[in-house]
Amino acid sequence: MSAAPAFDLDAWSRSRLARIESALAQRVPADAPAGLGEAMAYAVQGGGKRLRPLLVLAAHEAVARGGDRVPALRDGRDVAVPQAAYDEAALRAACAVELIHAYSLVHDDLPCMDDDVLRRGQPTVHVRFGEARAMLAGDGLQALAFELLTQEADALPSQQPSAPAVPDAVQAALCRLLARAAGHAGMVGGQAIDVASVGLPLAEDALRRMHRMKTGALLQASVMMGAACGAADAAAATGLRDYGAAVGLAFQVVDDILDVTADSATLGKTAGKDAAADKPTYVALMGLDRARAHAAELLEQADAALEATGLADTAALHAIARWVIARTR
Amino acid sequence: MSAAPAFDLDAWSRSRLARIESALAQRVPADAPAGLGEAMAYAVQGGGKRLRPLLVLAAHEAVARGGDRVPALRDGRDVAVPQAAYDEAALRAACAVELIHAYSLVHDDLPCMDDDVLRRGQPTVHVRFGEARAMLAGDGLQALAFELLTQEADALPSQQPSAPAVPDAVQAALCRLLARAAGHAGMVGGQAIDVASVGLPLAEDALRRMHRMKTGALLQASVMMGAACGAADAAAATGLRDYGAAVGLAFQVVDDILDVTADSATLGKTAGKDAAADKPTYVALMGLDRARAHAAELLEQADAALEATGLADTAALHAIARWVIARTR
Repeated sequence: MSAAPAFDLDAWSRSRLARIESALAQRVPADAPAGLGEAMAYAVQGGGKRLRPLLVLAAHEAVARGGDRVPALRDGRDVAVPQAAYDEAALRAACAVELIHAYSLVHDDLPCMDDDVLRRGQPTVHVRFGEARAMLAGDGLQALAFELLTQEADALPSQQPSAPAVPDAVQAALCRLLARAAGHAGMVGGQAIDVASVGLPLAEDALRRMHRMKTGALLQASVMMGAACGAADAAAATGLRDYGAAVGLAFQVVDDILDVTADSATLGKTAGKDAAADKPTYVALMGLDRARAHAAELLEQADAALEATGLADTAALHAIARWVIARTR
Repeated sequence: MSAAPAFDLDAWSRSRLARIESALAQRVPADAPAGLGEAMAYAVQGGGKRLRPLLVLAAHEAVARGGDRVPALRDGRDVAVPQAAYDEAALRAACAVELIHAYSLVHDDLPCMDDDVLRRGQPTVHVRFGEARAMLAGDGLQALAFELLTQEADALPSQQPSAPAVPDAVQAALCRLLARAAGHAGMVGGQAIDVASVGLPLAEDALRRMHRMKTGALLQASVMMGAACGAADAAAATGLRDYGAAVGLAFQVVDDILDVTADSATLGKTAGKDAAADKPTYVALMGLDRARAHAAELLEQADAALEATGLADTAALHAIARWVIARTR
């Protein structure tokens, strides 16, 4: 597999993160009533890695570079759409996928689920705001994700410059991808399997299915949403989908490895928790060495999938995949 | 105010309910993994009134009757869209709004919220399936609502005849209306105010704001989503929006009246619960007689708003408003 050219992921991420953090801060309604907005903002802030938004933007850039105008997707007509409209769509998609991720953490931390009191080194949302408000904040963040994807151009907060209108076809495609990945066939379905399988021995197939749904679906959707904000041909769409699947699974394998090899301070969450809770993990199933080899295999798959896209500008995507495997938190 | 012509709401509802129940049964994935699908299906079945889906279909029929083809909405071009595509959009919208309503009840019944064990005379979802699965079922129902609104025509369950493609502009408009009504500026925001205001005296303005958000926004969105599945001109859109607002508020006023005047068996839920929980209600605020007079006033407003639409076929909407005021459960 050919190595990707040298690429400064830190520098690339820094400018994208600035845009993402600013958009999230502006679009999460901290003034929503009765403390709800405060809880929603708290859930979204707090120093997450923003891996999903970065995947959206990297995939968007891979398909969108090279011209001012690209044809509109999926409406059967080749109408020119300004690049700025696709850029706006990608920024919305980046925010929306992070809102879904943030809501899932809030609900996952509740006493009826994982009962976690620390997240990124801070009190979890229900510890800080109470259980009822935490549940509602999660519910509100999910709705906000879909509201943001379908917002009209003139409905943005007044401090923002007016954004170009995102084509209806792109709005609908983004909602479709996100809803499917977030719901019963994706993230929520995976969480249900997770809840039901504590203490049960899972075979590798079943473990892989659970993680493909629970973590993988949303990571893969991030890549596919980025691709939907531009003009991906069939080879590019398929390659990016396969890349998203490999990175999504690798993320979870590495998560399982870090749960046994890292300490809580580095992770920002309770290390050894999965093992203590008798949850099925890749490490429990295949041991540490084979889990590490599996992660390396998935990185090769991700690289190969990117080669198959035929896209020129995939350096950021290659680098993100490598970071996912090598990360220590 | 002119009275609406005689109209057989029972007969009208019966055929629409058959379509709604069948679509919900087919589109809620009872086979989702680890008991999740069972919990989702249980939450959606169980004999609700289906008021919101009926409002969607009634509004859709009011704007869509009278021709085979209507112009496509909001895409800047007058492309003919087959009536069947709008009918499919309205059926999806009817299901989606009911999924949001169903999820809100599941979460509302949880121990950290109202801690209710009975709903429509049956054990609530968390009593039957456990708290974790109930929370996930609610989360999955919300995602499913947006998935359904943006489903591609060939993605329907195989037992269904292939449905016509819903225009992207309609898909996006429906998501926009539903997300806004369901989120922090609507239902979830109203619930947050409700949770925060137990035991506090609320002035009439604050009580009205809470109910406009908590219950009214989704009822109003039902009407507006129906209107978005057809060709409503500005007068029709405004009139239907005002009708939705009046019916939404009336629904809650009558709910408060029934909480003190009906018994639990008739209601299918615990009567007197709001008063016992020291929740602010219209009856507590203005007394039973003034609350009844207020409901009657809102019915007049709803009738007047329908007159202002200039639409010919509003008999079902008039009849639903009257039913909302006169209902005993």
